Amino acid sequence: MHYPTGVKITQKKEINYGNRGMTLENDLNQTNNYYLIHDIAVIHKKPTPITINKVDYKSRNDAIIREARFKIPSTTDYNGIYKGKYIDFEAKETKNKTSFPLSNIHKHQIEHLKSIIKHGGIAFLIVRFISFNETYYLDAKDLSEFIKNNDRKSIPYAFFKEKGYIIPDKYNPRTDYIKIIDNLYFKEVL
Amino acid sequence: MHYPTGVKITQKKEINYGNRGMTLENDLNQTNNYYLIHDIAVIHKKPTPITINKVDYKSRNDAIIREARFKIPSTTDYNGIYKGKYIDFEAKETKNKTSFPLSNIHKHQIEHLKSIIKHGGIAFLIVRFISFNETYYLDAKDLSEFIKNNDRKSIPYAFFKEKGYIIPDKYNPRTDYIKIIDNLYFKEVL
Repeated sequence: MHYPTGVKITQKKEINYGNRGMTLENDLNQTNNYYLIHDIAVIHKKPTPITINKVDYKSRNDAIIREARFKIPSTTDYNGIYKGKYIDFEAKETKNKTSFPLSNIHKHQIEHLKSIIKHGGIAFLIVRFISFNETYYLDAKDLSEFIKNNDRKSIPYAFFKEKGYIIPDKYNPRTDYIKIIDNLYFKEVL
Repeated sequence: MHYPTGVKITQKKEINYGNRGMTLENDLNQTNNYYLIHDIAVIHKKPTPITINKVDYKSRNDAIIREARFKIPSTTDYNGIYKGKYIDFEAKETKNKTSFPLSNIHKHQIEHLKSIIKHGGIAFLIVRFISFNETYYLDAKDLSEFIKNNDRKSIPYAFFKEKGYIIPDKYNPRTDYIKIIDNLYFKEVL
């Protein structure tokens, strides 16, 4: 299961069909599509980075990649624009009940999120604890603070409870994370 | 030659070795890397979008993609953040001496650039006329205006001369397009 998210593996037979279409990635694709259609935000998932070694040219317009490998991503999976602000995040699911293992995120990606904050963007993690069916928004500032102050290889579930924000499950859009961004970054001062 | 830019085709034997390392894409990679290292901006090229059909599992950590196809991109190739602003652009080379054929850009991509402007981002094209060794910045506002007022299937070279901005060739960074953005969007009002 060491494949990048977003890669459809058709050979994989042991798919849990019960959950198909209910993954965080699917929810976020649906959500981002909702934002796009309703002209709320333009946020896309980046393609999976690969290195291509061999290509078959069947015809001028039809090429088949015959050998390629997955690359370690240097950035996060999602970025875009909302109310003029640059948005950047990584999304992960975990079956773990007590913590979110930091091995789920590459060091490059954490450095990337920190650098986005430095340049004035909005950066965060979306983490779903599958066992609790809870999805959290964790601002990259809090993530960065946690890493600075801890040697731990995982972020305790309690830390998400304390510093994160629950993104409620909805019908449409399914994972309405922009509501959290509104509260954190665009709240009108009364 | 109908492959997306950024795809290394190792089977392709007819590479023009004289130009190797001098393509616009290489120049932009070098430039974006310069911006990143010097903490000026965080702008990355997106991976080439593909659909994966078959994967060989050699071992737990080593997978080889055995069948995949190129997908039509729904967004542009480059995006990121500069001085807190969302940056988005597409980059193309043309051998044409009189105009830039619009067939080089997908309709999706033009719609995407327009929508970025609408949401408050900075969107543009970088077009290199190989024959003149001239590289132009053309703001997406001007591109959009051109398309609105013309039925033409290409943008005349003269239009780039009139509305675009030359990005001078430099040693390091090679294609310093942020200088143009500075002049257009961050000029201090005296």
